Amino acid sequence: PAGRGSLYADLLSQPCRAVRILLQCTGTPHTLRSVALRKGEHLSPDFSKLNPMNKVPVLVDDGFVLTESDAILKYLVARCGLADHWFPSDPQRRARVDEYTAWHHTNTRPHAAKVFILQVLVPAQTRSPVDGPALDRALSDLNRTLDHLESMFLRRQAFLCGTDISIADLLCVCELMQPLGGDRDVLESRPQLQRWRSRVQSAVGPAFDHAHSVLYSVRDRYKAKTSRARL
Amino acid sequence: PAGRGSLYADLLSQPCRAVRILLQCTGTPHTLRSVALRKGEHLSPDFSKLNPMNKVPVLVDDGFVLTESDAILKYLVARCGLADHWFPSDPQRRARVDEYTAWHHTNTRPHAAKVFILQVLVPAQTRSPVDGPALDRALSDLNRTLDHLESMFLRRQAFLCGTDISIADLLCVCELMQPLGGDRDVLESRPQLQRWRSRVQSAVGPAFDHAHSVLYSVRDRYKAKTSRARL
Repeated sequence: PAGRGSLYADLLSQPCRAVRILLQCTGTPHTLRSVALRKGEHLSPDFSKLNPMNKVPVLVDDGFVLTESDAILKYLVARCGLADHWFPSDPQRRARVDEYTAWHHTNTRPHAAKVFILQVLVPAQTRSPVDGPALDRALSDLNRTLDHLESMFLRRQAFLCGTDISIADLLCVCELMQPLGGDRDVLESRPQLQRWRSRVQSAVGPAFDHAHSVLYSVRDRYKAKTSRARL
Repeated sequence: PAGRGSLYADLLSQPCRAVRILLQCTGTPHTLRSVALRKGEHLSPDFSKLNPMNKVPVLVDDGFVLTESDAILKYLVARCGLADHWFPSDPQRRARVDEYTAWHHTNTRPHAAKVFILQVLVPAQTRSPVDGPALDRALSDLNRTLDHLESMFLRRQAFLCGTDISIADLLCVCELMQPLGGDRDVLESRPQLQRWRSRVQSAVGPAFDHAHSVLYSVRDRYKAKTSRARL
């Protein structure tokens, strides 16, 4: 089916899930076109033509090709006339979302991703043990980011950028979920952030677990493997 | 003077220059409040209260405190009613600017900054020689970013996100200028990007050299020092 728009994505990629959740929980018609990173499909000639950066997600809306999840989320809110709270039109409330998303690129995203990469991806691809000191450094970087999320963004408000959910919460929660692929809940000892995550889950409904089902499978395989290793 | 808004900035910081150029070239009244990074003024208790992240730039607009240059630039266009080309209201043209700024955070910004840090800042602070292999790696990362700027963003258009200048060009040009502090023009063998830089300079007028005067002084001191070392 041609669909109203196509989202090229791999749901094991955090930013892809953020876009997928926005589309699903707002009931926005679209076609999900799978680009399996583990099979190298993002390096194929066809996909390279679409995005020479070879990255997902990519949105194709009636011939308009857009990369970068941050830009895609903001575009979808405008293009599809989604509820204002996702990306408020008021300049100061909007600036708060732009402030978080800018910060996100060099904080939440790299720090949470690195934990998953070092604990799950690299050992699986190289069949070598986890680099313990590197993982400890990554966890310590992530902890500083979690501190900032609590003390700055969630200080005195229910969501990262205000009293209602925005695209900032989607980008953030999908990153913080990623280490779960290694059976690690990075919010385990952080009740404030846990409550925020529950609020995000409630706000987006079944779209949350839908988008994360691939990650849950990765976690289940990881648990099965590590419990076998322990026998 | 209280001013219409205050910009807390150090003009040796690339993102600070981008905001300063936008304000100056559009004739937007504001007060520049200097935060000298080399003196550690961003770590003072007063500044920490303003921005607990201890980063510049910070905009204070009638009590509204905003961090992150990317967010500040977009906010200023809306708040001050600046010309539409800076950050177009058309959803697709706007999405192109959001696409570049998202990409910028993990490409142009870290790669150009690292060249300056390795060649100028670290040797000055540690009084040790330049780490040659690390600088070569940084230059090679930067070259890939410059390739992408040419082949993707500047392909078939005069500015990064269209036929007219936008905030994306300001963020980008200020990063690419930074290695000049070590007397290094990273666009030396890149005529396409040189022409783009000239177009940006013409579009913003004297605000360009104003904002870069501190960097030019750093370059002059660097040249004097290295020519003395050669005697």
